[in-house]
Amino acid sequence: MKRIAILGSTGSIGRSTLNVAESYPERFQVVSLAAGRNLDSAFEQAQRWKPRVISMASEADAADLQSRLKSAGNSGIEVVYGPAGTVKVATLAEADFVVSAIVGVAGLEATYEAVKAGKAIGLANKECMVAAGELITAEARKQGKPLLPIDSEHNAVHQCLRGGRMNEVRRIWLTASGGPFRHTPKSEFPSISVEQALNHPTWRMGKRITIDSATLMNKGFEVIEACRLFNMPAGQVSVIVHPQSTIHSMVEFVDGSILAQFSVTDMRLPILYALTYPDRIESDMRFPVMDLRHLEFSPPDVEKFPCLRLAYEAVEAGGAKPVALNAADEVAVAAFLDGCIRFDQISQIIEEVLGETKAGKLESIRAVLEADLQARGIAQEKVGRLARSSTTASVATSRDL
Amino acid sequence: MKRIAILGSTGSIGRSTLNVAESYPERFQVVSLAAGRNLDSAFEQAQRWKPRVISMASEADAADLQSRLKSAGNSGIEVVYGPAGTVKVATLAEADFVVSAIVGVAGLEATYEAVKAGKAIGLANKECMVAAGELITAEARKQGKPLLPIDSEHNAVHQCLRGGRMNEVRRIWLTASGGPFRHTPKSEFPSISVEQALNHPTWRMGKRITIDSATLMNKGFEVIEACRLFNMPAGQVSVIVHPQSTIHSMVEFVDGSILAQFSVTDMRLPILYALTYPDRIESDMRFPVMDLRHLEFSPPDVEKFPCLRLAYEAVEAGGAKPVALNAADEVAVAAFLDGCIRFDQISQIIEEVLGETKAGKLESIRAVLEADLQARGIAQEKVGRLARSSTTASVATSRDL
Repeated sequence: MKRIAILGSTGSIGRSTLNVAESYPERFQVVSLAAGRNLDSAFEQAQRWKPRVISMASEADAADLQSRLKSAGNSGIEVVYGPAGTVKVATLAEADFVVSAIVGVAGLEATYEAVKAGKAIGLANKECMVAAGELITAEARKQGKPLLPIDSEHNAVHQCLRGGRMNEVRRIWLTASGGPFRHTPKSEFPSISVEQALNHPTWRMGKRITIDSATLMNKGFEVIEACRLFNMPAGQVSVIVHPQSTIHSMVEFVDGSILAQFSVTDMRLPILYALTYPDRIESDMRFPVMDLRHLEFSPPDVEKFPCLRLAYEAVEAGGAKPVALNAADEVAVAAFLDGCIRFDQISQIIEEVLGETKAGKLESIRAVLEADLQARGIAQEKVGRLARSSTTASVATSRDL
Repeated sequence: MKRIAILGSTGSIGRSTLNVAESYPERFQVVSLAAGRNLDSAFEQAQRWKPRVISMASEADAADLQSRLKSAGNSGIEVVYGPAGTVKVATLAEADFVVSAIVGVAGLEATYEAVKAGKAIGLANKECMVAAGELITAEARKQGKPLLPIDSEHNAVHQCLRGGRMNEVRRIWLTASGGPFRHTPKSEFPSISVEQALNHPTWRMGKRITIDSATLMNKGFEVIEACRLFNMPAGQVSVIVHPQSTIHSMVEFVDGSILAQFSVTDMRLPILYALTYPDRIESDMRFPVMDLRHLEFSPPDVEKFPCLRLAYEAVEAGGAKPVALNAADEVAVAAFLDGCIRFDQISQIIEEVLGETKAGKLESIRAVLEADLQARGIAQEKVGRLARSSTTASVATSRDL
């Protein structure tokens, strides 16, 4: 029986994890949940799973949840809140395995503490590896506990890596859908609308990750994650555009053999893989191999999508640079979604913020969070400047017409 | 330093193995060679590799080789001949690893003796698994030594299987090019000429295997090999047509994940894999991943290609049935190449021979060879009958014109 803590239990990955746990009641027990801000969903989950501890983002929600649980006769569940509550959920003595699925830097501290507490980790939080990958992987190595990726690309890489030893890997190939602007000329990038950028050809996802897919920044983050998670230099991690997204990723070995992984596109699969590793257990998920058809592949256009190049530069420099990459991107994408900057200015802002960020090694999660805040400040300032000049430009353009 | 014996050293796989050994002189030493009938090539190989023992098919060639080697000042090489010579090469005390690459049932005995002598085996001889798979795998299990496939499909499967445990495999998927008659209507099969059948769209190979690819019998043999080599029921081995032959094969695990292997099409790769397993070593072979394009897949048409169905029936029955399948096919293909029977009669003969073969378990290589001879006899008789009736039919046709 594996005892699971879930950080981000009311989000998409959290719910899929509970779905998996529900399918294998003899294998998995849910012992603690960090539920965030969705009180109704948290109440339902607490009622259903009766965890030892559940955490809410705010003190007020925690109090509400506690009284609702009491009324429902479940007063044995400890309700905690805030960052300390999340850490409590992540480090609970009863938990063997922590699913890290809180979005953003909010998940960093609790994930790091879980690693330090010797838990095995299922990683769905991108920032853990992008911003704090050096710290977290060093600690996991020290603890001798696995960091198992819960996203289709890195989970695929993890599976393919079983075909050889780490020093027998020539290259990791991350596949990319290529986003909606694969065939759009770069000259049209300045006029890409928010609506166009949100219309991803393959996936339905949150807004930020959809924009990050359109700029290929998301793939850049994945390059950094792969470098950290698998301890590979950036020069050995490549991106290949594969619009069907059938093959989730590949590993090329030194002898010239390449292993590729594919499966149905269902997050329950990487979750199940992470939860049961090194075993595999029967699931009802079946990829219709007989329907495999017309897989296409092509190299990414780094000139057109500078975010990918910036990610390589950031991970090679290390330290505060990847932190700044992530922070600047989050600010720039929000500004684009708000109509303050143009699509092509997202990468421009990130590049400028990176240019003003020192690479300096970060020795603690606190240092990571400080670097994150600093980069956000710089990015915000650049957004302000661009927004003002673009207003002027629009006025100029209107006048010209 | 791995010490290698090669059965079939002057054939295509044998020469590729020597090529690999030449590239890694610090890792591989060639200690014995079974060279067959090509005297010049055997002399060259003996001069170059100075094996402890070399075997020729005939006593006369062995005597010739001995005197040529003596004249060249290499009298220290022991020259042997015939089946006993091949067994000597295969079981030499100094050899750690035996590459089994003699085509046909001629390779059976020596391979079996090598396994019994506790050698690790690189298997390129198809008949070893099709005709004597049960015997050879049982002995290899007893010895605790690996049987490593040297052909692109099973080598791919072997690599993909590393992604999980044997009891975690849902299905093995063997890819098939589909042969030249993938799009030819079955009604045209009776008029397929030898020339058309020898014109394989993807591979340049020997005549028998080219015809076996056109009838899908070759893929049927590979299904049997996979069942034997990986101890899988036939119901868990499937064939998928993939005309580009880029993906060499795949393994689907019980959780729904599929691993696929691909690489350049160069036999040195599976040879190197087998010779170095469980390690992988650097080679100059590189598949141009960036050129990956338009991979197609479709199910095989078992109605159109009955040989594939016959292979499943033979392996499920076991014992003498797969032996008869192979023997009948060899006779029928030879008859087709000689213009004695029609293309569609190849499967007809095999089906009839299978129908007259008892499944009976075979307890020794001798019993396998006897079953082989018996099936050849039956097949030859059926060829004769069909050839006579077709001559009559041709005459009738000419008269009608």
